Amino acid sequence: MLKYVYLFQEGNKDMRNELGGKGAGLAEMTNIGLKVPPGFTITTEACIAYFDAGKKFPAGMLEETIEAMKTIEEQSGKRFGGTENPLLVSVRSGARISMPGMMDTVLNVGLNQETLKRLSELAGERFALDSYRRLIQMFGNIVKGIERHKFEAVLDEYKKKTAGGQDIDLTTEMLKEVVEDFKKLYRDELNEEFPEDPYDQLSQSIGAVFDSWYGAPAVSYRKEEGIPGHWGTAVNIMAMVFGNIGDDSGTGVVFTRDPSTGEKKLYGEFLLTAQGEDVVAGIRTPYSIGEMDELMPEHYKELSDVCTRLEQHYLDVQDIEFTVEKGKLWILQTRTGKRTARSAVKIATDMVEEGLITIEEAITRISPHQVDLLLHPSFDLEAKKKAIDSGDRLAVALNASPGAASGIAVFDADKADELGSAGRAVILVRPETNPDDVHGMAKAVGILTQHGGMTSHAAVVARGWGKPCVAGCESIHIDLKARKFRVSGREIKEGDYISIDGGSGEVFAGELPTVAPDFGKELELQKLLSWADEVRRLGVWANADNPIDAKRALEFGTEGIGLCRTEHMFFEEERRHIVVKMIMSESQEERQKLLDQLLPFQREDFEGIFRVMDGYPVIIRLIDPPMHEFLPPREELIEEVTKLQCTGEDPEKLAELEKIQEVVERMWEINPMMGVRGCRAGIMYPGLTEMQTRAIIEAACNVAKEGIDVHPEIMIPLTSHVNELHVERDKLEKVAKDVIAAKGIEVDYKFGTMIETPRAAITADELAEYSDFFSFGTNDLTQMTYGVSRDDAEGKFLLDYVERGILPKNPFEVLDWDGVGVLMEMCVEKGRKTNPKLEIGICGEHGGEPRSVEFCHLIGLNYVSCSPFRIPIARLSAAQAKLKHG
Amino acid sequence: MLKYVYLFQEGNKDMRNELGGKGAGLAEMTNIGLKVPPGFTITTEACIAYFDAGKKFPAGMLEETIEAMKTIEEQSGKRFGGTENPLLVSVRSGARISMPGMMDTVLNVGLNQETLKRLSELAGERFALDSYRRLIQMFGNIVKGIERHKFEAVLDEYKKKTAGGQDIDLTTEMLKEVVEDFKKLYRDELNEEFPEDPYDQLSQSIGAVFDSWYGAPAVSYRKEEGIPGHWGTAVNIMAMVFGNIGDDSGTGVVFTRDPSTGEKKLYGEFLLTAQGEDVVAGIRTPYSIGEMDELMPEHYKELSDVCTRLEQHYLDVQDIEFTVEKGKLWILQTRTGKRTARSAVKIATDMVEEGLITIEEAITRISPHQVDLLLHPSFDLEAKKKAIDSGDRLAVALNASPGAASGIAVFDADKADELGSAGRAVILVRPETNPDDVHGMAKAVGILTQHGGMTSHAAVVARGWGKPCVAGCESIHIDLKARKFRVSGREIKEGDYISIDGGSGEVFAGELPTVAPDFGKELELQKLLSWADEVRRLGVWANADNPIDAKRALEFGTEGIGLCRTEHMFFEEERRHIVVKMIMSESQEERQKLLDQLLPFQREDFEGIFRVMDGYPVIIRLIDPPMHEFLPPREELIEEVTKLQCTGEDPEKLAELEKIQEVVERMWEINPMMGVRGCRAGIMYPGLTEMQTRAIIEAACNVAKEGIDVHPEIMIPLTSHVNELHVERDKLEKVAKDVIAAKGIEVDYKFGTMIETPRAAITADELAEYSDFFSFGTNDLTQMTYGVSRDDAEGKFLLDYVERGILPKNPFEVLDWDGVGVLMEMCVEKGRKTNPKLEIGICGEHGGEPRSVEFCHLIGLNYVSCSPFRIPIARLSAAQAKLKHG
Repeated sequence: MLKYVYLFQEGNKDMRNELGGKGAGLAEMTNIGLKVPPGFTITTEACIAYFDAGKKFPAGMLEETIEAMKTIEEQSGKRFGGTENPLLVSVRSGARISMPGMMDTVLNVGLNQETLKRLSELAGERFALDSYRRLIQMFGNIVKGIERHKFEAVLDEYKKKTAGGQDIDLTTEMLKEVVEDFKKLYRDELNEEFPEDPYDQLSQSIGAVFDSWYGAPAVSYRKEEGIPGHWGTAVNIMAMVFGNIGDDSGTGVVFTRDPSTGEKKLYGEFLLTAQGEDVVAGIRTPYSIGEMDELMPEHYKELSDVCTRLEQHYLDVQDIEFTVEKGKLWILQTRTGKRTARSAVKIATDMVEEGLITIEEAITRISPHQVDLLLHPSFDLEAKKKAIDSGDRLAVALNASPGAASGIAVFDADKADELGSAGRAVILVRPETNPDDVHGMAKAVGILTQHGGMTSHAAVVARGWGKPCVAGCESIHIDLKARKFRVSGREIKEGDYISIDGGSGEVFAGELPTVAPDFGKELELQKLLSWADEVRRLGVWANADNPIDAKRALEFGTEGIGLCRTEHMFFEEERRHIVVKMIMSESQEERQKLLDQLLPFQREDFEGIFRVMDGYPVIIRLIDPPMHEFLPPREELIEEVTKLQCTGEDPEKLAELEKIQEVVERMWEINPMMGVRGCRAGIMYPGLTEMQTRAIIEAACNVAKEGIDVHPEIMIPLTSHVNELHVERDKLEKVAKDVIAAKGIEVDYKFGTMIETPRAAITADELAEYSDFFSFGTNDLTQMTYGVSRDDAEGKFLLDYVERGILPKNPFEVLDWDGVGVLMEMCVEKGRKTNPKLEIGICGEHGGEPRSVEFCHLIGLNYVSCSPFRIPIARLSAAQAKLKHG
Repeated sequence: MLKYVYLFQEGNKDMRNELGGKGAGLAEMTNIGLKVPPGFTITTEACIAYFDAGKKFPAGMLEETIEAMKTIEEQSGKRFGGTENPLLVSVRSGARISMPGMMDTVLNVGLNQETLKRLSELAGERFALDSYRRLIQMFGNIVKGIERHKFEAVLDEYKKKTAGGQDIDLTTEMLKEVVEDFKKLYRDELNEEFPEDPYDQLSQSIGAVFDSWYGAPAVSYRKEEGIPGHWGTAVNIMAMVFGNIGDDSGTGVVFTRDPSTGEKKLYGEFLLTAQGEDVVAGIRTPYSIGEMDELMPEHYKELSDVCTRLEQHYLDVQDIEFTVEKGKLWILQTRTGKRTARSAVKIATDMVEEGLITIEEAITRISPHQVDLLLHPSFDLEAKKKAIDSGDRLAVALNASPGAASGIAVFDADKADELGSAGRAVILVRPETNPDDVHGMAKAVGILTQHGGMTSHAAVVARGWGKPCVAGCESIHIDLKARKFRVSGREIKEGDYISIDGGSGEVFAGELPTVAPDFGKELELQKLLSWADEVRRLGVWANADNPIDAKRALEFGTEGIGLCRTEHMFFEEERRHIVVKMIMSESQEERQKLLDQLLPFQREDFEGIFRVMDGYPVIIRLIDPPMHEFLPPREELIEEVTKLQCTGEDPEKLAELEKIQEVVERMWEINPMMGVRGCRAGIMYPGLTEMQTRAIIEAACNVAKEGIDVHPEIMIPLTSHVNELHVERDKLEKVAKDVIAAKGIEVDYKFGTMIETPRAAITADELAEYSDFFSFGTNDLTQMTYGVSRDDAEGKFLLDYVERGILPKNPFEVLDWDGVGVLMEMCVEKGRKTNPKLEIGICGEHGGEPRSVEFCHLIGLNYVSCSPFRIPIARLSAAQAKLKHG
């Protein structure tokens, strides 16, 4: 027969799955000789069997429980229901993984009229009565389902009669009446008496703790955290010890190191003459753990030894609950201590230096998310809490780009540019953003959009720049004309201060103080990452479009530029009008003249980047977006033209607009994402990519003459048939060779293509014949593999899909291993078959996302490329992938 | 050493690759004992070697040629350059595949001052002089590149001096002068004398024939027909025989069966006292070949025997050239006779019945394109030729849907509907069409669009209906307001007659008479297809949305409906306003009410189809297009609203439009093709697909009660993740079961999904768990695999790509085996692994295209589904695929 009950001395720390985290910890501590109150654990298997049988205890479980109770009685020298020295027990849940506050606990089980009397004699009447009324309340509520507020109402009546109005102000007499009223309430509600039989109390409490596993809070927490329902919970039954019996008693919580800074010193709180709940409830201000040294020096010493022992035993920071009952220290719980990102890094590196853990262990202990948090400003936690309490949190939406920022709300890009340039902290608030807004976004400290998802324009640009962004905040209603937004009854006008937390998706009214990051000063993080660098096989490159980003990427540890987009360069003010004219030009001759004007601008762009990236490869992508993105939006033109036609005003402007409109209509595409863009633009607009290639190679030659070690790699985007690549490469390589011959200096260059369409992946063997490198553009590849337009889908159905569990994850955030991944793997295999030296990387948004980096490691890519701010995450993730998979 | 020269007696019909088609035919005829003038062939290898060596004859070739000439001299009893009995030869090209008129010929080689004299004595001076001047002209033009018109100009001068003004009116004296003038022209142009040495003439002529292989006409013809350039041409040198020497001479062309009807009787033309050129030039009206029986009964008999012999030898209709020289019949050429589609079918089936060929041979002899032509009306060939000659052909654009139609040009769908309903023949002319135009398209006899490609809306709908359509006719300039179009200086106003040939892409001014098809009367075709049915493994199903189409599909031989689209049903006038309200409804309750109103309409639709398809499966696709397609276009709304805002007129209408605009803006998608459509709409609009499923199963139960054998298969479109299918199927199967339970009659139904996204194909193993069938939607699958929007791409770059050879074919016309095909193959394999009984078909446009059907056969699909008019093509293609691949 399956064993359902384990005494603490029968278990150990490896039995987490059977005993739960709490039970395994109590067993381990008991066995290494720490003072733990006697007790036992009913296994998770019992819980599963209970549900399988339609909420019936499995055969033998109760008998084993009674047996175990007898052992506790012996160990404690007390008796359950005994009138000599009554034993009280706590009944607590404990799943494999801690689910704080999600499940139920019943304390003081074993109290009844009989034992109450004896407890009064032993520990005082008031204490005994208070324990008893708590039992009735907890049991009535948790086991029997009587609503909590009904008990509270009774209690409140009595509290009103006191001067202080608090629990502690109730007199012993009053507590007697409370107990009677609680029992009456119990009787009225349930039509039965509160059970006097301690074993009746116990078995019902065990059932209630099992039941709480499927309570609404636990279910939704599990869903959020991905904990499977079939795990079940264990139940821990332990002799009660009381920290509130006399002056030589107390209770507290201690961390073996400071969970917020990581400093190696005890950290925690301690209350004299109090129970655990009192610490949590904050009724009295607790002492810091250091002060315990003065108040109870002997016990502090003992506790300190316990801490050292547990940390060395578990080789990690422990979070320990303890109680001193009448001069005796009891350890009630130990678990791995939760900690801030900063302290996690410090603790991990410290522990390596202390010889407690290996470098590899340190690397696996830090989550990439923690690294992310470290590299962005954050709000002061106190200030944030205060803002929430005072109702200043306006909304919670998508955490599109981490970091915290406060500034005045501004509703258009021009004004954001103007005020931002004048040194004001500005938060740009838009329904959504597009490339026209980029100048304003550049000058804003943060971005808030009403529409759009995690990969909307705003989100992508913000993440690229490491700027905080909250996106898809549908609860705000923007009135662009009135320059304000409304949200839950409040109105934020232009110029009002708001604060956004891009890490949590929160939006606040007012200005919250922030704490700034500085990678240069994160010495422990740098140490950890340098260890990661030694471990990882994947290279980590950066997506950077200009010298400033490139410089930042180097600081973060990049080994090359995996994606330098050239279209941003076309949007700059002084060039924009040339670009527009170029697109609208009616003859090849006219177009070439305009392209010639753009050439020196582009060349300068590249020279700047090459100088910064001395010695490193730089992959430059030729122009990619649909050409009409450089022209005014179609709908704006229709509106303006209709208006001018209607009013008859300004016929000159009308004529001009009509001319542009004609071109826009001609170029307009129903599905622009799959239209004339990428290499198709290169093929259909003669001279365009030739100009870009000329600019790249001229720049490379120029800086090479300065003594810079330059490695340009020219990337042809959106290939779907080998001939596109063939035609473009042939044409462009001729330009490259001409320039090199003319400049008279050898420059090492490569040509390659982006893998963005499924067909490119499928025909990788053909493409590899004309490619020195491949780079996965997984944003587009995901779009096309799924048949989902990321610009449209996230707000309209994709996030809803994730919410409803139809999709496990948003595939634009986390690479889709089973779909897109299959194509990527096929591509790598076919590509390398043709060209074993093929350099293969990824430059989509996924390049800085841990699960995606793991996949890239698995299929043997050479590198991942991501925005500079995600480089540390990628370095760590790459190392973790190597440790996990070899 | 390679042998470059083959005497006719040395070759045979299987040496096509070396000797070319003409050479192989001459050799074969020589060897089976027919009277062929002596001659020999210089091989294609010689031609290739000639070009490889930079236009130098390969070593030994000339020597072999001289050797062969000696044999001809012996065989003919004449001598080349001899003054006794001079031998003249023709020098003709002859590639593997006939390239009519694309390459050069030089006749009468061997004439000079000396031989001319003797020829004059033997055959008359006028004849000799005429032959000589022809030689000088051909040689000067073809070998030496003197422009043809210069010779013509000389000749014209003399013709003017005659009464008749024709060649034959020239006197012998005049011809003498012409010869002198031609020689002077030759001398002036080239600064050399016309060569007197016959071997000089011969070798230069051979080089010129080789050179013509790379002449512009031949190169462009090869490109069109897909003939590789490295094949080269052979050169045939043959003793000249003359049909114009005396009354017992003549010349003609004969087909062994009528190439236009297929009737089994000799067909051809014959001229007495004439040369081959005279037949072609049409100087005199020739006799029909039947009349030869009266004029030259003996030779007619001989010829008739030759015909029978050659047909039985080649087992196919022969096209034979012959000459009677002084009472002796010579056969100058035989080749497979080109024939009309109709005759091809008749000949093939007749030959099977005659025991000449097998059923399998008959099936491979008919091209699917011929079947296609048979099933569409065509213009009377004479009338078409006349129209071209008189300049009435306005344009040639995309042959988007075959068939010919004449009607009045009409520029909007409403008017087309009105006039069409009133019995007028209408051609709808639009910049492009969309679902709003469908009612007008339905009443038009043909469609002409300015924009859009082979898979544009107009093309797809037209093909579906078997209506002629010419699309992408960019050379016409439509002025919708003025209701007219301009093209090459002409103007066609509304009401003017135009004619379009959707098989050739031609557009004509005026009304051309047509010849109508009737499948029911095509008895030979039906016989051939029934043979094909016995051979093929692939099923052939039809795409049909209504009972009329379903009935037509049955006539054409369908075995089921592979795609019944349900969205067309939503566009019908009486339902449209309910659909619009349903989409705009703000509460689920309101939406459900409107869906309930749509239910009976849908049920009726399905009942009608099920009744027609008694005993056959019917696959019904749940709603697929983006929902906003049912609302007015965004840009029209912007224009109208702006106008009303500006004028202040009609505030009520403004308010209404603004309300619609709000919804349209909310629903608007940047890339609608990848937005909320397919199963995404089913998931995001609760009640919609439930209503459709209810309508389908209720209809099935209702007709089952009538005794109809009904097999509905419900198809969930655009799945990209298994959970979408899972969620939809679970939801809908519940509806199906409820209906069946309520109706109390068992109905056999299936659920399945369309494979339209690459991810669906990749994860087919997962999808197969929830699918009874798969159907490839290769239009979408091609779009997403290529990353090419078919709505945009064809006009903007795709056709240009095909033109430039970047893409071998338009992948929306011919399935892309190497890209999309790889996904399909993977899908079939993975899907059948999970569910070996999985029924897999294709319902994209490719289902009726021969190369695509071949691929579907290869990867083991169960069926192809195509528009009713393409069913015969698919039946034949499927049989051909089976014969080719087993």
